[in-house]
Amino acid sequence: MKFTITRSVFLKTLNDVSRAISSKTTIPILTGLKLVLSDTGLVLTGSDADISIESRIDATSENNDLQIESTGSIVLPARFFSEIVKRLPENTMTLEVKDNFQTLITSGSSEFTINGLDANNYPRLPEISAPQPLMLNAEVLKQLINQTVIAVSNQESRPVLTGVHFVISGAQLMAVATDSHRLSQRTLDLEQPTTTDYDVIIPGKSLVELSRMLTDDIDQVELRIAENQVLFIIGQTAFYSRLLEGNYPDTTRLIPTSSTTTVEFAAPALLAAIQRASLLSHESRNNVVRLTLDVATQSAIIYGNSPDVGNVEEVLQFSALSGENLEISFNPDYMKEALQAFGQTTVEVAFTAPLRPFTLVPSEDRDHFIQLITPVRTY
Amino acid sequence: MKFTITRSVFLKTLNDVSRAISSKTTIPILTGLKLVLSDTGLVLTGSDADISIESRIDATSENNDLQIESTGSIVLPARFFSEIVKRLPENTMTLEVKDNFQTLITSGSSEFTINGLDANNYPRLPEISAPQPLMLNAEVLKQLINQTVIAVSNQESRPVLTGVHFVISGAQLMAVATDSHRLSQRTLDLEQPTTTDYDVIIPGKSLVELSRMLTDDIDQVELRIAENQVLFIIGQTAFYSRLLEGNYPDTTRLIPTSSTTTVEFAAPALLAAIQRASLLSHESRNNVVRLTLDVATQSAIIYGNSPDVGNVEEVLQFSALSGENLEISFNPDYMKEALQAFGQTTVEVAFTAPLRPFTLVPSEDRDHFIQLITPVRTY
Repeated sequence: MKFTITRSVFLKTLNDVSRAISSKTTIPILTGLKLVLSDTGLVLTGSDADISIESRIDATSENNDLQIESTGSIVLPARFFSEIVKRLPENTMTLEVKDNFQTLITSGSSEFTINGLDANNYPRLPEISAPQPLMLNAEVLKQLINQTVIAVSNQESRPVLTGVHFVISGAQLMAVATDSHRLSQRTLDLEQPTTTDYDVIIPGKSLVELSRMLTDDIDQVELRIAENQVLFIIGQTAFYSRLLEGNYPDTTRLIPTSSTTTVEFAAPALLAAIQRASLLSHESRNNVVRLTLDVATQSAIIYGNSPDVGNVEEVLQFSALSGENLEISFNPDYMKEALQAFGQTTVEVAFTAPLRPFTLVPSEDRDHFIQLITPVRTY
Repeated sequence: MKFTITRSVFLKTLNDVSRAISSKTTIPILTGLKLVLSDTGLVLTGSDADISIESRIDATSENNDLQIESTGSIVLPARFFSEIVKRLPENTMTLEVKDNFQTLITSGSSEFTINGLDANNYPRLPEISAPQPLMLNAEVLKQLINQTVIAVSNQESRPVLTGVHFVISGAQLMAVATDSHRLSQRTLDLEQPTTTDYDVIIPGKSLVELSRMLTDDIDQVELRIAENQVLFIIGQTAFYSRLLEGNYPDTTRLIPTSSTTTVEFAAPALLAAIQRASLLSHESRNNVVRLTLDVATQSAIIYGNSPDVGNVEEVLQFSALSGENLEISFNPDYMKEALQAFGQTTVEVAFTAPLRPFTLVPSEDRDHFIQLITPVRTY
């Protein structure tokens, strides 16, 4: 195996694939990066057993400037190899596998020889064929991921809750996550209705890695689902994730259908006020802020307190406060993450009782995104 | 005590003073920030007992927009107070000390009440008067600090080596640091000769903090030295540091006066090659790279090796190689830090023998800056 390539092209692909590689793996060969060179191009693979990323550099594309002298394959120590490629002196690099998997990397007057491993010992990726792959808009998928992963649980005690529940049926995709204190549900309309229904749980960590790969230059993502794997195809890159086993709890019944008090806030202004109030609550043993809504005087006040440090009180700007008066306490960190997921919009907050979950929806589009936060009992 | 001020002005001064405040102090009141308001202005003070920073916001300067309602003083929890000021909603803030050192901070509709402490319990700063303060160019001082602190020792076993030795005499200031493996010495010519000679050791950590305050907008720094304190005056800010006690070793005799081999390198190119070679040496138990200089064939080769991972060999670009052939091994990290301190210049490296320290000086100005590195025995 021997090839010469433009270093920046190789490094970009190497960085993409390296996202999947962890130094903490229990399978030693997975600390390596697999390179397979055929007449048609170079394929790089990285994996941590949960996520696998495979990316292709095409031999026919002139931009890649890939010159193949002989085909073959090798596994190289990923972290170390990346460091070398980053620091090579010239814009072009040559990689050549010699006897005993010894690999020579040259660029300018710099010559590295590193010990590789036999690529035949590298685990194989599953083959996933779907009769009808789903096409998703990359920007919308990224937003959907960022809006739902915030509510994923960090606790391994209920593994299914560490994932996002995807339900695909007809012309709709629904994604929902809950850690049992809060819930975030986003739906989107598919351009083409699916002929096969899917109900899968994708690990939150996989989705976070995937969303980092969805840069502005990417338009579409192809989604293929198999029994225990999901595959996202992004241009020349294939992103595989295992699925979580088990049944996701029925979350539809958790979302209240009526309310007794509703109020609208500009999300960024409410976020800033919550952040100020949380400065105090973070210094306190129970991390809680209090919101009082008075319909008669049309006032909304947020209040944070720490016996050791002090307290904060802030009169909030709002619109359309109606229903019953309310005093409610909640974890400001849940509220912060929920509001960050809304961005620059106006949110409608709807309450039923001081100890019942309340909901947040964008005022402009109430049907596709809802968040739910469980309040905290303070007496 | 009550005043109103432009928040950005207050925050900038608060950030400067906060550099001196550590949450790890054993003296509880030093986790606080002292504010003293008189008719002429507001003085903020922070200290960790080693470093103290005092900064003044003038009442007469219109930019500060400081409106004084009543004078007084208070100590507020520094980290927490900074967080509040950063997050206040409006461009103006008001601070008012009430009964029992309770302090009210208001901005827009946000009202914080935090618990303060009696400023009379805050330690007093030393008064340092020097008959003839020294004026230093801020940019040159910053360079001098960055060039010498790299060689300061991290080991507390010989405390004097954790500082930089400043010797001021006549028209010259000499700063030198060594951790006994390497040495860095910088001298500079004073604009005005000193009438008093000084010989002091300033802690490396203090100098690092000081250099961070020397931003591009600062032209001059005034230096005053007392028996166990040094004071740097930067505009409206006074930076105090304690001095290290003890005698600094005589370093002048360590610097070789002759050499048997000399060679010149462009500092950035040599740095890049050393960084590549160190990728391998870092994977090895003894972190060492080898340099061979052959005068007859006019070649310079750097070599790094790790038995587990591989090796690297690189032919170096150089000029003016003369003297005897040489093969020498050294710690690449010392070399990297030394070369970074030179910037974009050409360096002359001078060797006497494979186990004797070698020196680096800028080719352009050999008299004001010299670094010395002790090689490593590898056989």
